[in-house]
Amino acid sequence: MIIDRLIDRILEMENPTVVGLDPRMDYVPAEIFKDVTDRYGRTAIAVKYALIAYNKGLIDAICDIVPAVKPQIAFYEQFGAEGIDAYIKTIEYARQKGMVVIGDIKRSDIASTAEAYSDGHIGRVEVFGEEYSFFQEDFITINPYLGADSVEPFLKNCEKYDTGLFLLVKTSNAGSGDFQDLVVDGRHVYEIVGDHVAKWGRGLIGRHGYSSVGAVVGATHPSVAAKLRKQMPHTFFLVPGYGAQGGSAADIAVSFDKNGLGAIVNNSRGIIAAYKTEKYAGMGYAEAARAAAIAMKDELNKVLR
Amino acid sequence: MIIDRLIDRILEMENPTVVGLDPRMDYVPAEIFKDVTDRYGRTAIAVKYALIAYNKGLIDAICDIVPAVKPQIAFYEQFGAEGIDAYIKTIEYARQKGMVVIGDIKRSDIASTAEAYSDGHIGRVEVFGEEYSFFQEDFITINPYLGADSVEPFLKNCEKYDTGLFLLVKTSNAGSGDFQDLVVDGRHVYEIVGDHVAKWGRGLIGRHGYSSVGAVVGATHPSVAAKLRKQMPHTFFLVPGYGAQGGSAADIAVSFDKNGLGAIVNNSRGIIAAYKTEKYAGMGYAEAARAAAIAMKDELNKVLR
Repeated sequence: MIIDRLIDRILEMENPTVVGLDPRMDYVPAEIFKDVTDRYGRTAIAVKYALIAYNKGLIDAICDIVPAVKPQIAFYEQFGAEGIDAYIKTIEYARQKGMVVIGDIKRSDIASTAEAYSDGHIGRVEVFGEEYSFFQEDFITINPYLGADSVEPFLKNCEKYDTGLFLLVKTSNAGSGDFQDLVVDGRHVYEIVGDHVAKWGRGLIGRHGYSSVGAVVGATHPSVAAKLRKQMPHTFFLVPGYGAQGGSAADIAVSFDKNGLGAIVNNSRGIIAAYKTEKYAGMGYAEAARAAAIAMKDELNKVLR
Repeated sequence: MIIDRLIDRILEMENPTVVGLDPRMDYVPAEIFKDVTDRYGRTAIAVKYALIAYNKGLIDAICDIVPAVKPQIAFYEQFGAEGIDAYIKTIEYARQKGMVVIGDIKRSDIASTAEAYSDGHIGRVEVFGEEYSFFQEDFITINPYLGADSVEPFLKNCEKYDTGLFLLVKTSNAGSGDFQDLVVDGRHVYEIVGDHVAKWGRGLIGRHGYSSVGAVVGATHPSVAAKLRKQMPHTFFLVPGYGAQGGSAADIAVSFDKNGLGAIVNNSRGIIAAYKTEKYAGMGYAEAARAAAIAMKDELNKVLR
């Protein structure tokens, strides 16, 4: 089961980290820019190859010490079709290197439409009688606001193709309180969403006791995460908000179980743009990313033991 | 203001209809299939040109009687980068023909990521010092579950580039009740979301009294729509759920104000695949779409007068 493969890699590498591949153009080093514009001019195609080259460098630098990557599709989609191609080729490369890929797409729609998203990202699409898998993420993130029937087409493909989900339960941003924290009969909306997510995942629990249907729970709300950890003992957490967004290593400890399992912590900027910080000044971007990933691993392990 | 342009077109054509361009492969007529596979083989590129050809035929057939189209990005995205290219080229063509384009993308993310979606779809993206607009929708749909700060980057571009939004308030599916209908201090979550949407739109109200920040309110819940119509007098409604999903013309009347304005009703299958129904048997797909669009217009006008 895909959740077992993720947990096995976390155990093997002793590292519950996922690196967010959110490539802003101002992160991409000058040498890559020069190379792609020499070849393709100042075009969207050059942007595509810049994103791919940058990501390949990062993946090469971390694939033996970090179990998973999480490309955020918005940073690719903003460049149109060429951007989506870069997203797809990044996933392809990360998979070749053995990494688990979490596509941060936060899609949601009514069932008939959700089916198209689900088939395209974590299932199969028929093209002239043959089945294709255009995106090939191992997991994707999903927004649950439309309710159970909108999630069903994703659950179906998780079962059929051994893929997984992380559903938004409590996001890391300040505004997450506006609707997720509303109180219904003494319980927050995020707790009620949490109940549903736990229920949806029941049929997909692997040998480590966690389901392939996980939850997004921000590092920026540690008391909420602690409560949800108890409420959802079989739900694996994807934890954004560490580092740049303000969550500390101590804040994320509450998302883990007593065996130090149960969550994977995302860091984007802090790893992929580490070379721009004083701490790693003088290093190349890939070398700095590796050093920052090792530092994060050590920091997490310190609070998890 | 973009909302005024939409309303002016609705008034001019006496037709508050938007046609959903949700092209399933089994809607595409055999002659288009033959043509694209002859040229491009049984490939994703052939799929792209099939989608574009099908949509162009539909747009040509309806652009003088229907004010707007709503391509649902999932039905394009499922085919990867080629699919996204078909989505973009469809938007381009609809704009050339004078139609208002509502991109049904239902995106949402934390602010720094939402900015990338917003710039790509309804703003501008910088590529090597030049500004590009890759998608060019006039309006997009947005999922508000992440709260005010996640919506802010979209509002900013609406103001800057005169584009618009439709935020999910009450969706048309049965499962919409799971979270949207939860009751907080005597009010439903959708009512609270509705308050926020109305507030977010205050600065963008046009000369017809409606804001460029609209709401998605399903036709399948007429009593909810009636309540929201009163609650949000300056919010324009995008109404899905008519036809195939079960909403009747009488059900949608409650979404309009006393002047017959205030909403635009979506129909996808019922128009774009009309040629597959008994009623329009023997007609070509474009001719049938036009006939079905006229029938829908007449049906709506009957209940709106």
